[in-house]
Amino acid sequence: MENGGSPNKPIRCRAAVSRVAEKRRWSMRRLVEVEPPKAWEVRIKIICTSLCHSDVTLWKMKEFPGIFPRIFGHEAVGTVESVGEHVEDIRAGDTVVPTFLAHCGRCVDCRSERSNICSLLPFRFKGMPRDGTNRFKGLNGEEIHNCLCVSSFVEYTVVDVVHVTKVDPRLPPELACLLSCGVSTGVGAAWKVAAVEKGSTVAIFGLGAVGLAVAEGARIHGAAKIIGVDLNPAKFEMGKKFGLTDFINPKDIGEKSVSEVIVEMTNGGADYCFECIGLASLMSEAFSSSRKGWGKTVVLGVELHGAPLSIKSPELLYGRSITGSLFGGIKAKTDIPILAQQYLNKELNLDEFITHQVDFKDINKAFDLLLQGKSIRCTIWMDR
Amino acid sequence: MENGGSPNKPIRCRAAVSRVAEKRRWSMRRLVEVEPPKAWEVRIKIICTSLCHSDVTLWKMKEFPGIFPRIFGHEAVGTVESVGEHVEDIRAGDTVVPTFLAHCGRCVDCRSERSNICSLLPFRFKGMPRDGTNRFKGLNGEEIHNCLCVSSFVEYTVVDVVHVTKVDPRLPPELACLLSCGVSTGVGAAWKVAAVEKGSTVAIFGLGAVGLAVAEGARIHGAAKIIGVDLNPAKFEMGKKFGLTDFINPKDIGEKSVSEVIVEMTNGGADYCFECIGLASLMSEAFSSSRKGWGKTVVLGVELHGAPLSIKSPELLYGRSITGSLFGGIKAKTDIPILAQQYLNKELNLDEFITHQVDFKDINKAFDLLLQGKSIRCTIWMDR
Repeated sequence: MENGGSPNKPIRCRAAVSRVAEKRRWSMRRLVEVEPPKAWEVRIKIICTSLCHSDVTLWKMKEFPGIFPRIFGHEAVGTVESVGEHVEDIRAGDTVVPTFLAHCGRCVDCRSERSNICSLLPFRFKGMPRDGTNRFKGLNGEEIHNCLCVSSFVEYTVVDVVHVTKVDPRLPPELACLLSCGVSTGVGAAWKVAAVEKGSTVAIFGLGAVGLAVAEGARIHGAAKIIGVDLNPAKFEMGKKFGLTDFINPKDIGEKSVSEVIVEMTNGGADYCFECIGLASLMSEAFSSSRKGWGKTVVLGVELHGAPLSIKSPELLYGRSITGSLFGGIKAKTDIPILAQQYLNKELNLDEFITHQVDFKDINKAFDLLLQGKSIRCTIWMDR
Repeated sequence: MENGGSPNKPIRCRAAVSRVAEKRRWSMRRLVEVEPPKAWEVRIKIICTSLCHSDVTLWKMKEFPGIFPRIFGHEAVGTVESVGEHVEDIRAGDTVVPTFLAHCGRCVDCRSERSNICSLLPFRFKGMPRDGTNRFKGLNGEEIHNCLCVSSFVEYTVVDVVHVTKVDPRLPPELACLLSCGVSTGVGAAWKVAAVEKGSTVAIFGLGAVGLAVAEGARIHGAAKIIGVDLNPAKFEMGKKFGLTDFINPKDIGEKSVSEVIVEMTNGGADYCFECIGLASLMSEAFSSSRKGWGKTVVLGVELHGAPLSIKSPELLYGRSITGSLFGGIKAKTDIPILAQQYLNKELNLDEFITHQVDFKDINKAFDLLLQGKSIRCTIWMDR
């Protein structure tokens, strides 16, 4: 950071600004100006951040919601530097995680136990949630877009208060950071969307951070058999740390389909199936792997090619169901503190998700590691 | 009936035998021989039966599960004439309804609250459920197939005991008959699969007997708004008897899609949507009509052309779910008596489903009325 800033003044600081889709031309020496928080907004000094697949997805998009120049990153933890008017539940000095999904706490969705899709400030791809404008500028005055209402590949960011959750400062920052997006999504999908119960069988398609977090959520809630499906054989060992009991590599099963193997392994189909990649074909395969009568498939992956989900209708009639969720059904302000407490109680395993750590100036390494399938989560430290 | 029969002897009686797909060549003067019940089986004297769309679907099929010669009909009520070995909970003289779906009460599915798809004797298209053989023969000895483990267009039929439910004999037979299939399916879908609750909004695609029964189930469970969708404008008046509050004729909404109209009428989408036709395109439309966050779509129609269900994956991510069911989630032996009691308590409206009544010899009229969309249910009386 070049100047210390004050609640009412812009802060000039370092950012990773992405100018062109799929090109990593950003320089860590680039300075941006971060405006002070407006009403209902919070300015946060980012402590650390990590790269999530959704950043990569958006970064590759040449058309909307691909917008440039943009500061990516939405999984992070930080300290509140200052707050705007009307912000009451968050104060300067608080440790907070930003979340891409809002939680106002007052709308019909936030008040319902069944929905986590806030109606006050719906999920949006561009600008601040209340007015669509941005808080970042280049030193030449050019507008720089935010990412998923957050942007964390920058030393200071401004986030609407409904996208900010206070966390227990005893939690190590690199672990609190995980609760900001990917791990909460996976654990939440098992806990809140599927409501996995003791003795149940679970199949997980795709063992990235979200898929492994589903395993962890299923483990905590007592699943008896947790089957992982991934093309990378190294994921079995990794998955065992999160309760994985069985593993299927689609390359190793010959003529059989993955669903046939799962139906055999579970004596009729898994109680809960999770699609964590974002491929329509895999969503159908997950559905076919679920048990007649009550099998439930939860789709967490965002279909990257816009393909529709296709299901054989006779399979549907046998009582199976399929649902999707954003953020694994997590309501940020009430559920993230529960996950943090589960970590402090040594119930929830968070440490093993972090496979790498880099300094902010080496952010490109974090991209390389994720794109090469080497990292689960790579912590990016802002003060190094 | 030509001879009175006895528990151990075949009974010779009248049947509507279908010999060729889609041709109504049957003669009511045709006699068949109905074998005595084997172990676990019950021989029933049919009092009355009615024609269900599934009979028509199977009757039109030239290939498996279209099989001929066959005795159609599976929605009925009757009196037990005799029982085979090991039958304990049903006695000669009992008033019973046969059901196409088994309920053994002991398997993992029957013991679970979440499934009604019995694992002991899974749903089958051909023959008796335990050994696949038939109990009907022509007088020349030819084998005649049954329909959905039942067959009721015949004066006497043999049904496995897991497909037979005792009903209160105080219930008028033509109303008990309705609980054997269509009405239970619709009411059950609202009651058990969707679990419609007080104040909720409901949209029903297709107002045949099943769709109207969904409305009746939603009404009983307190839905505040029940929207029917049908191409036949006469269905609105009919539907009002079962709690329908609103009606959409897809022909009358101009450029808009049905889902757009429903989203407007319900301020964001219906809480529960039901597809009661069996068209993949309508299943997608129902899904799009459901509310973000918690909207649930229940598919009751069997897709007639084998088309897969197709859903836009972004719509799925917003927390909507879709599920299908056989028999509306009804567990025959425990749930049908509950529905019968609701009728006797004057809570459940059954009378209005019956729009026509014919003698057995006029069964073709029942086909005409259903195919022309004139009847909801036409009672076919066996003793007339």
